[in-house]
Amino acid sequence: MAGRVDKSERSCFYGPVPRGELTKASILDRATALTSEVGLDGLTIGALADALEMSKSGLFSHFGSKEALQVQVLDHAAAAFQEAVSRPAFQEPRGEPRMRALFERWIEWGRSALPGGCPFVAASTEFDDRPGPVRDKLVALQRDWFVAIATTFRLGIAAGAFRRDADPEQFAQDLYGIMLGFYHAHRLLRDARAESRARRGFERLMAAARVAGGPPPETTP
Amino acid sequence: MAGRVDKSERSCFYGPVPRGELTKASILDRATALTSEVGLDGLTIGALADALEMSKSGLFSHFGSKEALQVQVLDHAAAAFQEAVSRPAFQEPRGEPRMRALFERWIEWGRSALPGGCPFVAASTEFDDRPGPVRDKLVALQRDWFVAIATTFRLGIAAGAFRRDADPEQFAQDLYGIMLGFYHAHRLLRDARAESRARRGFERLMAAARVAGGPPPETTP
Repeated sequence: MAGRVDKSERSCFYGPVPRGELTKASILDRATALTSEVGLDGLTIGALADALEMSKSGLFSHFGSKEALQVQVLDHAAAAFQEAVSRPAFQEPRGEPRMRALFERWIEWGRSALPGGCPFVAASTEFDDRPGPVRDKLVALQRDWFVAIATTFRLGIAAGAFRRDADPEQFAQDLYGIMLGFYHAHRLLRDARAESRARRGFERLMAAARVAGGPPPETTP
Repeated sequence: MAGRVDKSERSCFYGPVPRGELTKASILDRATALTSEVGLDGLTIGALADALEMSKSGLFSHFGSKEALQVQVLDHAAAAFQEAVSRPAFQEPRGEPRMRALFERWIEWGRSALPGGCPFVAASTEFDDRPGPVRDKLVALQRDWFVAIATTFRLGIAAGAFRRDADPEQFAQDLYGIMLGFYHAHRLLRDARAESRARRGFERLMAAARVAGGPPPETTP
């Protein structure tokens, strides 16, 4: 199925890192994994130093401040998301195949990219009312993703796959809602049917977007 | 319009509390407001003591532990939610009027019940992978609400308003997703169209649920 994710492709935050050879990239891998568990606000230089068994001064020399560390972790997580979700999805043909790939890979990311769940979902409620560079970075990244979904939809309209009178930003918010509803039911409520319901919601969204007489939907369970 | 919320009805967490007369209920009001700003995990006995200008020992005598305080704040917030959202909504006639009242009041709650946003949304990502009494309480409350939405839908089926072949739990997750998508676009992205998109999503959900030939939908902007 288009967009079905091969686990081996997944960006891994846990590769072996020989002691004494921690590069900035591998520090950011660990910092991102830690963030998914303790939240972005819990990601202090001290907490990361403990987790890495590094000195705080060594970390300060890399990042300078807690906020700079948080901002770089957001960029690092966004690069991993791009690698796992957007870049491969955008290689699929415009219209339904691309949108399905995006949905499949996004669900897979929410389910298993990081041990403590998606760092963006958690950070969104942590920082929604805290002005500053961390919020600014988070908003910029989340807006980029919102725009990317709407653009994918718009390209699907141009390709003749989706209705011309559909609203791409409406689609983006609807799809975001399906993912957040899935995430809440899956991660908090541990509801075994969370994913199948998200798929039904997605199919309903696609059916409403599809041009009448267009290609039939791929079957899903 | 059914369910349009009169601001004066809103549960208020900020009534004047004369110094020296802090009852447990008023302490919990302040603790809930503080939680909405710093997160449930940031709600320590010490942080609350600072905010209330009370002694930590005085608060310990009320709550005993940070976890007990957090659990009681969740119960307190749930009671406020019930007062503002579920109880008045459940007084509307079964079917579409009740579901609309629930939607309207829930949106109003997400928009303005507390200064730092809905404490349940933030707590859901903070505690989704932290076992213990706080997570247990949060899951129980969130499941109750999920079940309440599904039951409202089920009663609407019994009343002949919604399709017999519709899945009430699917509806509950779909509606949850619309609210979370609204919340994300409204609070994080400050998107002025977040609410109107949530309303369109809700109308689409209602249109799919409605029995053909049933009463026409109420108009919304």
